[in-house]
Amino acid sequence: MRIKKAKSQQLLPFSTDVAIIGAGVSGLYAGYRFLTGDYQEGKQAPQSISVFEMSNRIGGRLESIELDSMNVMGELGGMRYMTSQEIVTALIEDIFKGKITPVEFPMGDPANLLNYLRKQRFLNNSWRDSTGGSPTFETRYFVKEQFIGYSSDYVFNWIVNNVLKAGGYDKSGSEYTAREWDDIKKVLRYNFEGPYNGMLVKDMGFWNLIKDQTDEETYQFLSDAGGYYSNTINWNAAEAFPYMVGDFAQQGVQYKTIKEGYDQIAYCLAEEFTKLGGVIYQETKLKSFERTPAGSQYKYVMTIENTRTKVSMSIYANHIFLAMPRKSLELIDQNNFFFNNPVLKKNIPSVIMEPSFKLLLGFEYPWWTNPQILGATSGHSVTDLPMRQCYYFGTDPENKHSLFLSSYNDMRTVQFWKALQSDKLFQPRATKLVTLKSLQKAPYKQAPKEMVDEAMKQIRELHGHPELIPEPYTSAYKDWSGNPYGGGYHAWKAKYDVWNVMPFMRKPSQNDNIYICGEAYSDQQGWVEGAFCVTEHIMQDYFGLLWPDWLNKEYYLGW
Amino acid sequence: MRIKKAKSQQLLPFSTDVAIIGAGVSGLYAGYRFLTGDYQEGKQAPQSISVFEMSNRIGGRLESIELDSMNVMGELGGMRYMTSQEIVTALIEDIFKGKITPVEFPMGDPANLLNYLRKQRFLNNSWRDSTGGSPTFETRYFVKEQFIGYSSDYVFNWIVNNVLKAGGYDKSGSEYTAREWDDIKKVLRYNFEGPYNGMLVKDMGFWNLIKDQTDEETYQFLSDAGGYYSNTINWNAAEAFPYMVGDFAQQGVQYKTIKEGYDQIAYCLAEEFTKLGGVIYQETKLKSFERTPAGSQYKYVMTIENTRTKVSMSIYANHIFLAMPRKSLELIDQNNFFFNNPVLKKNIPSVIMEPSFKLLLGFEYPWWTNPQILGATSGHSVTDLPMRQCYYFGTDPENKHSLFLSSYNDMRTVQFWKALQSDKLFQPRATKLVTLKSLQKAPYKQAPKEMVDEAMKQIRELHGHPELIPEPYTSAYKDWSGNPYGGGYHAWKAKYDVWNVMPFMRKPSQNDNIYICGEAYSDQQGWVEGAFCVTEHIMQDYFGLLWPDWLNKEYYLGW
Repeated sequence: MRIKKAKSQQLLPFSTDVAIIGAGVSGLYAGYRFLTGDYQEGKQAPQSISVFEMSNRIGGRLESIELDSMNVMGELGGMRYMTSQEIVTALIEDIFKGKITPVEFPMGDPANLLNYLRKQRFLNNSWRDSTGGSPTFETRYFVKEQFIGYSSDYVFNWIVNNVLKAGGYDKSGSEYTAREWDDIKKVLRYNFEGPYNGMLVKDMGFWNLIKDQTDEETYQFLSDAGGYYSNTINWNAAEAFPYMVGDFAQQGVQYKTIKEGYDQIAYCLAEEFTKLGGVIYQETKLKSFERTPAGSQYKYVMTIENTRTKVSMSIYANHIFLAMPRKSLELIDQNNFFFNNPVLKKNIPSVIMEPSFKLLLGFEYPWWTNPQILGATSGHSVTDLPMRQCYYFGTDPENKHSLFLSSYNDMRTVQFWKALQSDKLFQPRATKLVTLKSLQKAPYKQAPKEMVDEAMKQIRELHGHPELIPEPYTSAYKDWSGNPYGGGYHAWKAKYDVWNVMPFMRKPSQNDNIYICGEAYSDQQGWVEGAFCVTEHIMQDYFGLLWPDWLNKEYYLGW
Repeated sequence: MRIKKAKSQQLLPFSTDVAIIGAGVSGLYAGYRFLTGDYQEGKQAPQSISVFEMSNRIGGRLESIELDSMNVMGELGGMRYMTSQEIVTALIEDIFKGKITPVEFPMGDPANLLNYLRKQRFLNNSWRDSTGGSPTFETRYFVKEQFIGYSSDYVFNWIVNNVLKAGGYDKSGSEYTAREWDDIKKVLRYNFEGPYNGMLVKDMGFWNLIKDQTDEETYQFLSDAGGYYSNTINWNAAEAFPYMVGDFAQQGVQYKTIKEGYDQIAYCLAEEFTKLGGVIYQETKLKSFERTPAGSQYKYVMTIENTRTKVSMSIYANHIFLAMPRKSLELIDQNNFFFNNPVLKKNIPSVIMEPSFKLLLGFEYPWWTNPQILGATSGHSVTDLPMRQCYYFGTDPENKHSLFLSSYNDMRTVQFWKALQSDKLFQPRATKLVTLKSLQKAPYKQAPKEMVDEAMKQIRELHGHPELIPEPYTSAYKDWSGNPYGGGYHAWKAKYDVWNVMPFMRKPSQNDNIYICGEAYSDQQGWVEGAFCVTEHIMQDYFGLLWPDWLNKEYYLGW
């Protein structure tokens, strides 16, 4: 059973002990921990905790929708977790057990998944590392000879291991723990003849490094075949290393999700938070905040706007959590006492905002399971067409209505889709089981018609057999590049000392009770877990909360 | 003889009739026109005109430097004009004749210029349209069959003409005047089966349109082979049409520049302006401005900061010219009465900011003239390596020291070079004619060492014959993507009615004397001429200046 609404209070308070700005997972986790955690002796939960959320929903960059009429959840934002991520796993699989259902997020069989790159269509089991033996397969990328026939996963791992080895580390990248990686990232040097000899890897861009380890065509191959342009932009190479070997380049990674929708983790946190006395105010926007005069009862006064009425009011607080990504921070008055801090001004831009875009289509039947087309039941195909990746999502066992994530793309391709935004929407079609009336009343907005038509054109080109691929009957999309998000996720820039910036950002001013949390300045960017780890750090470091009894004592929260 | 310094006043005024913010070409042209123009009856020049410039130089995105020791100017910013651009041509070739010297900006012989794309090296005369006959040459792009062997210029023209024809226009794109194009752009429809059938071209993105006319591989070819990623981003397709056929895709275009440096056009305007009583204040930054109370002597009060002392003061004015690009506008207080205008808030983001980057290298001799390497004397080579384009600039006839624009790149490749910024600079070398001491005292900053090394690696890969290509002895670079520029140039977004936005931006508030000028919201984006046309419009429309007697009466200033 899906929790559909967060309990939200209308009447704004005069004051609150703790103000949490943003009802994404980091903000809601802070509220949840305040009210459920155990405290060090002498410390206790705040008197009052209020969450202020700008939009009329909660979950931030998690947003699950149920396309009419199908018992399969579609994800417009974050969509999965890894069981190595212990906070999110404990919450979903232990704490909120019974309320939500953890399920596998299957990545399919390579024999039934496609690559379509430079107009060459081939199955995902064509790669040399999956078939073994000598290279019988060549892509249309003029890669260095030693990489011919190998997958992007293989090449990413090869690069990381090659640099580690030259830097004096003998194990392969995937054998180091997160704690060990944090030590390595500080000191690893790039020991190869050429422009970068002797540099710290953390001072290098990942594009610069990949090109130097291979060449520009191999880089293009990795960019295209890897599926995510965000992975190969010129971000901090040292941060990219464990990220690539821990996730994208790892064959054995197990993904999971929540059957009722991944945003249910936010709704569970919110439900528990409000049940225990926390309050959520939706459609409220923080415009600025100032220190109060000495001797005041509260430390800060915030200017909060009701986004519907546009009326602003003053609300007092002793602690402010800015539970938000870079762009949202930048949209708050930058001239107030807090932002007028040269170190903060330097560190806010330490992460790159990465645009991302998702388009969901609903079909009357899962055409991708047709063996003539592909025979896929799950997983994703990758292409250098602007759609980049499509995921074969679920099928309603009752009615066969099927969900297809028709495009998941990021960085420069987002502009391709952004220009297709318009008021001329896709007209949903009635199916055997869904009336047109029901579709027209569905609580989600259809994608623009040209966007759906263009996506279908690319889907047909990617899969071949255009005549076997039907039209969708419904659609939905999300562009995460606009305000207040600034992007779907973030990446550290080269040359920043992340081990200093991360703790700094959590509490940028020593004398102020103002905290920044979320995935943006975390070491698991793009993941819910990154947001949780940053927040957990703050709870323990500044509020005297004890290590949660439901969390493995040895778990590493990062810098 | 190069004008090296603009006359700048230190002591800030209490008030000024006209305040021009920004000493780029649009602001200086406004000042120049005010003091040299003829006025309608009853109108006259303002009492006092002050230019406030944030940096300690003038010229905005024009910046010429003389690398030690060579009598050849290097351009870090805008570098040329076309004689079809009549304001800039008249100023350089008539008004300031004798002070500055117009010279050809030769584009070289295709037989001595290279393409290096997907590791394939070939001369620029390999293309089908320059050799005639059947396709004997194939690139490594899997383009549509009808485009095999053709240059990007040819394909761009083909697309524009194909869309024009289907839209009911029979002449080829290059035969229409700018005035005619402005009529066409408003109404041209895209009449092709598929997702976009019947749409106005101005509502389409150029990437969307190119892909629909060709396919994604052909698009990739045009993006890479065209040299500028900015040309093929998903900008307003209708605006792209005359831009592409009028400049980049035109075989016959004649470029010119100024021998003493292209920024001399700014210095000439400044010299004339200050000679006639105008005043320039450098290192002064506009932070905000407000309306004065009714009955005040001046309409506005500006908060201007001395960027060196950080002291702000109030300066009164009756007219304010915001002679600046989009990012600079966004850096002014956005909550004041002027920016708090919903139409302005919608129109400021109507243009895309386009990052651009230039790296100049000085060599002891022009190795590119070596017939074993290339035999080039001018022009540029194009590659899909991150350096993208290099220009074979001049050679000092006295000492053979030679200037090479080793990278001119924009959009996503700028990140490749940005991450190479560091304090470890390239160490200049003494040459037969330049002492190390002189180089170390040179009034420009060297580029970082890794940046120069990486560029040299790419230059050697592009040209082949690495053993014949020497090391540079000096360097300089400019990244135009940072504040306050936001980019080297701009492009209109799809779906905006540019014919409304352009005049709106020139005077966004009917009741206020506040004007925005510059290339950003012009119809010749990226060109000095665009800035001049916008400013000339303002001078005639709002200040009663008569058409300049030195400018062809029939010349079209655009929307």
